[in-house]
Parts: sequence; C-alpha cells; structure tokens
Amino acid sequence: MIDKAKFFADCRLRVDAELDRLIPAGSVEPHRLHEAIRWSVFAGGKRFRPVLMMAVARTFGADLELTDRTAAAVEMIHTFSLIHDDLPAMDNDDLRRGRETCHKKFGDAVAILAGDVLQTLAFKALAEDDRLPVDVRLKMVSLFADASGTPHGMVAGQQLDLEAEGRDVGIRAIEEIHERKTGALISASAIAGAVIAGANDSEIDSIERYATRLGLLFQITDDLLDVTQSSETIGKTAGKDVHARKATYPGHMGIDATRVLAREVCKDANDALTAIDHDTDLLSYISENILNRET
Amino acid sequence: MIDKAKFFADCRLRVDAELDRLIPAGSVEPHRLHEAIRWSVFAGGKRFRPVLMMAVARTFGADLELTDRTAAAVEMIHTFSLIHDDLPAMDNDDLRRGRETCHKKFGDAVAILAGDVLQTLAFKALAEDDRLPVDVRLKMVSLFADASGTPHGMVAGQQLDLEAEGRDVGIRAIEEIHERKTGALISASAIAGAVIAGANDSEIDSIERYATRLGLLFQITDDLLDVTQSSETIGKTAGKDVHARKATYPGHMGIDATRVLAREVCKDANDALTAIDHDTDLLSYISENILNRET
Repeated sequence: MIDKAKFFADCRLRVDAELDRLIPAGSVEPHRLHEAIRWSVFAGGKRFRPVLMMAVARTFGADLELTDRTAAAVEMIHTFSLIHDDLPAMDNDDLRRGRETCHKKFGDAVAILAGDVLQTLAFKALAEDDRLPVDVRLKMVSLFADASGTPHGMVAGQQLDLEAEGRDVGIRAIEEIHERKTGALISASAIAGAVIAGANDSEIDSIERYATRLGLLFQITDDLLDVTQSSETIGKTAGKDVHARKATYPGHMGIDATRVLAREVCKDANDALTAIDHDTDLLSYISENILNRET
Repeated sequence: MIDKAKFFADCRLRVDAELDRLIPAGSVEPHRLHEAIRWSVFAGGKRFRPVLMMAVARTFGADLELTDRTAAAVEMIHTFSLIHDDLPAMDNDDLRRGRETCHKKFGDAVAILAGDVLQTLAFKALAEDDRLPVDVRLKMVSLFADASGTPHGMVAGQQLDLEAEGRDVGIRAIEEIHERKTGALISASAIAGAVIAGANDSEIDSIERYATRLGLLFQITDDLLDVTQSSETIGKTAGKDVHARKATYPGHMGIDATRVLAREVCKDANDALTAIDHDTDLLSYISENILNRET
C-alpha cells in the first residue's frame, strides 16, 4: 500500500526541481524578469494541478519521470494566470500566499511580462519534452492551449468573471465562469496524466468526470475559505470576493447550504472513480483533502 | 517572372483569412474578449512577419497552403506583444495603426486578457496544423516559444527596453535590446518558412543571416520614421521614443548617420542571399521595401 502523504510530498519535490530546471536563474539577463518569475513560482504554492496530474498518471501505472515536464508546465500556466489576475487592472491584490504579489514587489510592467513569458515557457516545455512521443507532446500543447485559452478555457473564464463583478448573476452563470476559469485547467491536468499513462478512452472519460467535480469542489471550498477564514490563514486578502461583489456560492446560497453542496460534489467525484479498474485511492484521497482543506 | 506586388497582396489576404478562421467570432462568448482581439488583429497591420515567412517558403518552392497556419500564428504572437506593450503600465500608447489601442477601446483588463489569449491561440494553431508533419509542428512551437520568450526572445527584449528607458545606454546595448524585442521573432518567421519548405541546414543558415540583418533594418527604419514623420502618417504617436528617452539609433548617432547605416544593413541582408541557389528576388524586394518605407 502506497504511503499517500509521502507520494504527494515526493510529487511536490519533483515539480519544484523541474520548475527550477526550466526557468532561467535570477542571475541570467534580464535578471529582474527571471527574479519576478521565480518570486511567484516559488511562493509556496500547493502544486495542486501538478500533483493531481501525477496522481492520475500513477493510478494508471505510469512512471513519474514521464510526468515531470508536463506537471511543471501546468504550474507555470497556473502561475501566469495568478500574476495577471492580481494586477491593479484586474483583481488588484497585494497579497498572495502570504507575501507580496508580483506587481507589488516588481512593478506592474515586470509582472505583465513575467506572466506573459511563463505561458511561453510552459508551451516550450511541453513541445520539447523528449521523454514523451511526438504525438503525445502535440496533444499536450493542444490540451493545455484549449484549457487556458478561449472560448472554453481559463482566460475566457477570467473575462466572464470580470463581467459578472458587481452584478447579481445566477448560480448557473457562476458555474459556467468557474468551469472555465479554474475547472478547465484542473480537468486538463487530470486528463494529461491519463493520456501520458496510456489510459484508454473510457478511462479518460471517467477521469474527466472525476476532475470536473474536483474542479467544482475546489472552487466551492475556495469560496468558503474566503468568507470563513482570516487573511493570515489563507495567505491572501480574505473577504475580498464579497467586497468586490464577486459571484460566489456562499454569497448565492449561504454558508451552510454551500457546505452541504461541497459534500455532495465530493461524493460525485469519488463515484466517477468506481468505473476505473485500478486502485483509485490516491484520487479519492485528493478529493477528501480538498473537502476538508483549511487553506 | 513572379508579380511581386501581387504575390505579397495574396499573402496578406491568405493570412487575414486564416486569422479569421482561427480567432473566435465577436458573437461567441465572451464577446468583448473576442471583439478586443479582432479589434487589434484586424487593425490594418502590414503583416510583415507572415509575409516574410511566406516569401521564404516560396523561395524554396513550398506551396503557400503549408504556411497559412504558421503565418497566422506569428501574427497573433506579434499582436499580443503590441497590445501588452501599449498598456499604461508599459509604453502607455493611445494610438496604434491610426486608431485607438486595445486598452483605450476596451479597458486595461480586457487588453491584458486579449494579449494573453492571443499567445495561447498561436501555440494552439501551431500544434494543430495538420498540413505539417508532427515533427515540424513541434519545431514550430519550440522555435516561436524561444523567439517570443526568455532569455533571448521578445519578452526578454521588452524587459531590457523598459530597463534602458531614460538611461544613456550604448549602441551595443541598443542592438541587444532590438535583437530580442523585434529581431528574434522576425528571424524565427524567416527560419520557419525555410523549415516548412524543407530547406537544408546551409540554406537555413543563410536565411537566418539575411533575417537578422532584416530585423535590424526594420528597427533602424522604425526609429527613423519616429523622428521624421508625423503621427498621422505612421499611425501612432510620433516622437514617442524621443519623448520617453528610449534608446534609438537617431538618438545615438543622428539622423544622417542612421540613414547611411540603414543602407549598409540592407546591403548586408541582400549579400546573405547570394549563397542561396534559388531565385531570391522576393527576399531582396522585401529588404529594399523596408529601406525605402514611409510608414
């Protein structure tokens, strides 16, 4: 039986080591650009998307060496979106993971460029991952471009989120925003793990169903933390979403009903795993950890 | 003998048609994001990089159908960089190609996202171009990621340019900035055309030498236009570089010496073509047109 806590700790170490290899050192010109990238990438993030990807790949028996590069790429895409999301023109956040956001530390111009180039580095990493066959590499570029792009990906979700701010949108609109803004990249990460491990179409379908629920669960618990925890605990400005009149689950249905919803969604995620003819303990462990997370 | 003016007009039509196919319509949600992208992409740009790419491919005998997708991708990368460069936090430009810049028309947040997603769409297009073999597609992603990224690409150049503003940097520093900020993507475009056409290594080397000089020539003439033309003629705020104390050739060596330099660099570009055992008239036509350009 696999030691789950150790497995996930190992995954995080692998991703961080790969990120360190892929991102130019702060001593390389232009210094400030690379320092800014590293400031945000090595800010103590949970590496949720890479770890999910690796857990799915391991579930289908893949060697983690095959996943390192893709795991680092998805974290670079995620970090690029955080850096740009925090900009004054967007969410205007000064604090992220308990420290200054990229633009607070390095200025808006550098933060814009740091986000831009993290996206570039991610696609470069995916295309040049010579541990994977060429057709899988192309599939990865395509999968993550759709998940981070438009009309169904992350950036499209950020745009819809901006448009919804201050308006009283319905629960279905909230879900559509989150499916794109956070769900798409989470699903793509899980699917990538399955594709790299050579899972069949029906297994990939089950993983996609699981990951879709997981993405939703992640968002619901994120919203809950925003209203129930202090800034110090969650490492970013608490109550921010409410203050900005962002569309949130607790704002729409109240805290108690949101907690009930979270438990249902977690069960749905785990139910999607039952069709898979492998040990899926790593994956149900992830969903339960998200349900019970405190940061 | 090929009708050069007609060839280049045809290239522009092909690129515009491909861009129209690749970019979601303004009627697709999120509308404003797609409208903003289209506002900037279809703003009457000269399509210099796509046309160069296509001319190189044709020089080595390739069918232009093989180049359409890559040509559109490079224009999307170029436009993403213009949108972000124009932002208030960067160059703060209100006018581009004779009309409002993206952020003036749609707001800073939408402009940031429009630039972000143009990069995503470009890499998606390159990875999914099924007219090219898989290894060539991967080569294109890798080539354009290096050319637009860091430490030797466009975003690194923009960072160095920001750092040089208001400082009296030497001519060698100016060249290093431009080699990355504009030269890298121009060179990559030319190399892409040669790779797609199946040119051999020595031919690709010659094209790279030609394109490096061409990129320099493009920058020198850009600097000249900034000090010698009115805003109305060049379609953007004239004298802007001088005002911002940007590192420019005329600012460093005066207008007359810059004109002499431009002629020398144009001759160097054409000299690099003599090693190529094909008719290179299309390519020398491009360099001479840049030397004599008025916009």
